Amino acid sequence: MVAEIISVGTELLLGQIVDTNAAYLGRTLAGLGVDLYYKSTVGDNEGRVLDTLSRARSRADLILTSGGLGPTEDDLTKECIAQVFGEDLVLHEPSLEELEAFFARRGVPMPPRNRKQALIYRHGRPIPNPNGTAPGALLEKDGVITISLPGPPNELIPMVENHVAPFLTERLSGTRQFLVTRVLRFIGIGESALEQEVLDLLHGTNPTLAPLAHTGEVHLRMGAKAASVEEAETLLAPLEEEIRRRAGRYLYGTNSTLLEDAVVTLLRERGLTAATAEGCTGGLLGGRLTQSDPAENVVLGGFVTPGPAALTGILGLSPELIDRHGIVSGPVAEAMADAARRRAGADIGVAITGQAGPDGGGARGLVLVGLAQSDRTTHSEHHCIGIRDTVRRRATQLALQQLREALLDV
Amino acid sequence: MVAEIISVGTELLLGQIVDTNAAYLGRTLAGLGVDLYYKSTVGDNEGRVLDTLSRARSRADLILTSGGLGPTEDDLTKECIAQVFGEDLVLHEPSLEELEAFFARRGVPMPPRNRKQALIYRHGRPIPNPNGTAPGALLEKDGVITISLPGPPNELIPMVENHVAPFLTERLSGTRQFLVTRVLRFIGIGESALEQEVLDLLHGTNPTLAPLAHTGEVHLRMGAKAASVEEAETLLAPLEEEIRRRAGRYLYGTNSTLLEDAVVTLLRERGLTAATAEGCTGGLLGGRLTQSDPAENVVLGGFVTPGPAALTGILGLSPELIDRHGIVSGPVAEAMADAARRRAGADIGVAITGQAGPDGGGARGLVLVGLAQSDRTTHSEHHCIGIRDTVRRRATQLALQQLREALLDV
Repeated sequence: MVAEIISVGTELLLGQIVDTNAAYLGRTLAGLGVDLYYKSTVGDNEGRVLDTLSRARSRADLILTSGGLGPTEDDLTKECIAQVFGEDLVLHEPSLEELEAFFARRGVPMPPRNRKQALIYRHGRPIPNPNGTAPGALLEKDGVITISLPGPPNELIPMVENHVAPFLTERLSGTRQFLVTRVLRFIGIGESALEQEVLDLLHGTNPTLAPLAHTGEVHLRMGAKAASVEEAETLLAPLEEEIRRRAGRYLYGTNSTLLEDAVVTLLRERGLTAATAEGCTGGLLGGRLTQSDPAENVVLGGFVTPGPAALTGILGLSPELIDRHGIVSGPVAEAMADAARRRAGADIGVAITGQAGPDGGGARGLVLVGLAQSDRTTHSEHHCIGIRDTVRRRATQLALQQLREALLDV
Repeated sequence: MVAEIISVGTELLLGQIVDTNAAYLGRTLAGLGVDLYYKSTVGDNEGRVLDTLSRARSRADLILTSGGLGPTEDDLTKECIAQVFGEDLVLHEPSLEELEAFFARRGVPMPPRNRKQALIYRHGRPIPNPNGTAPGALLEKDGVITISLPGPPNELIPMVENHVAPFLTERLSGTRQFLVTRVLRFIGIGESALEQEVLDLLHGTNPTLAPLAHTGEVHLRMGAKAASVEEAETLLAPLEEEIRRRAGRYLYGTNSTLLEDAVVTLLRERGLTAATAEGCTGGLLGGRLTQSDPAENVVLGGFVTPGPAALTGILGLSPELIDRHGIVSGPVAEAMADAARRRAGADIGVAITGQAGPDGGGARGLVLVGLAQSDRTTHSEHHCIGIRDTVRRRATQLALQQLREALLDV
């Protein structure tokens, strides 16, 4: 099966939105073993949408579209698909009822123009969308499957997971080559150093191994094709084992595992708790850790201390210490970590203080990470390049890396 | 001038990389007044790259490619362009010298295969790339300008800023139509309600007005074309004025202004300070507010309180209050806000407590926002749909919205 992705929306061409849907759909198709040769983006223009759809129809077995299912006149996707495939759009009563119920739950009447969203191909069917007003639409005609999804990722992703992926899996079973990929995620080792470690493994054809550039960490992607998932996984296993043997200390997780997930898991395994204190990051580290710890078991609490008033008032640091060393200093990073640990009653305190720089290009940031355990308090210093946002993100990454390394040595 | 963007790379089709270059190039072209009708993504496959380039050649005046300029056999972009336009690739000595110098600076000899990167069209020219090994390449032939750039954004962006944008500006001067767009950003009003307010304004052709879907807020994009930027802005002014007259209370900013920027600006204008206390969001609200307040003037501090231990231990809430109402309750939201305000010595405390739900699809979240001022403490309750990440992001949005509304009424 050969697929093609079409993203519809002038805002995508203008660059006002980055098309994360296309990447997500690409990963999904790769996981299903469906070949994807082309992705196209086209604006809300009837002629150009028709042109793009016609070409896709001529060279693909599966067309996935995102966007253009809204209630406005600009939303043309279903109308264009109907035209290209010679289909009629007819009112789908259950979809209309769901739409009306959607608005009723919000206590507002449905605007008349939203009725358009309940139009579905006469020989197709809707795909339920519990998170928005636009149902998806599926049409199978002339040997081509066309699946249309709405643009907002929080609507599109659940629809793919709950409907599209199961539908395609069923459709593909028995005939396909299964491609299994696994991403190995490393922290604390540079891209070149890691590539040097695995240089001789980068030339295989099945399984394959390829480095993936990623800001602040390094990823390797393994891939294997076989007649079954199990067979493909059997091809991957010895490769992964060899990589773990060579660089296992830096390997924190696989696939979609986040560094914060790995750190929270390590804390849990070690039976330890943590607390945070954040200057320039203002809570982003706490935000990442609590995303991975919804049960509130290991991240006990944290402090946002953007300036000297908070450092003395909230964390109880001495004004003399701050005067003597400055906010962005090793002693203050260590004192922050220790105060966070004590005040939250946690085993480990981790602190960030830094100069994240202005919100312009090419700036340099200085980040200090403090780490306090019951028997020892340390800090490390890091120079980061980038705009304020990048430096702040990088600072949370460095703090998680330091915390991970401390936990590995516990 | 009509442009087309082609992104080359199998990793883009597999979704291992999100194509931020395409969005960046789209914004750049829009700013130059160049029309962009299509973006395509194609893998590292000669036949399909040739096919995509031939089509672009037939319908565009300017083709921008990213990716496929590396030293490996997979890197095919220049070779395919040469084939489509009937050009030869010849060794460009100065580029070879720069390549050799690039490797020398890193203290390693240049691998022989990198020599390929110094091949440039006989009738074209290279575009310098100080941040990587791949020079860009420019070809102007048969009325079509083709500009090829490397894939890594930290190489591509400086090349666009320093070479491509100035080249296009010069080329366009005198002949171009300037497109000026402005995005108006609203919060606290639904998409349908806002569209209802401006319905009669949505049908203009110059200026144009279009709604943009955006999670948690609503945006309108205005656009005008004219022979100069000033003229285009003159077309936009009365439209913006009319929209402000109708829905100004909900309009918090324009273009890239973030809600947190608007809230920090309001705090500054009112001479007020704020402090945060966060349960399920774990610091994300503090992170957003401090991103917009690098001078640490108005966001005095905050508290991360994921569970009852932190609520009592760090914020000093009474265990009885928590037992009686539960963590996710109005009284606890108000007590958190009040404690944050008092402990940080701020004028306003804003608190989030909620049930963000598990990390799966289709979940429902309950979010309470507490707000404490010197003379009054209030809370509001919100139901959110989505995965944990979405609910948490939405919770910070709701907290900023509540804070903004309180500040508007000060």
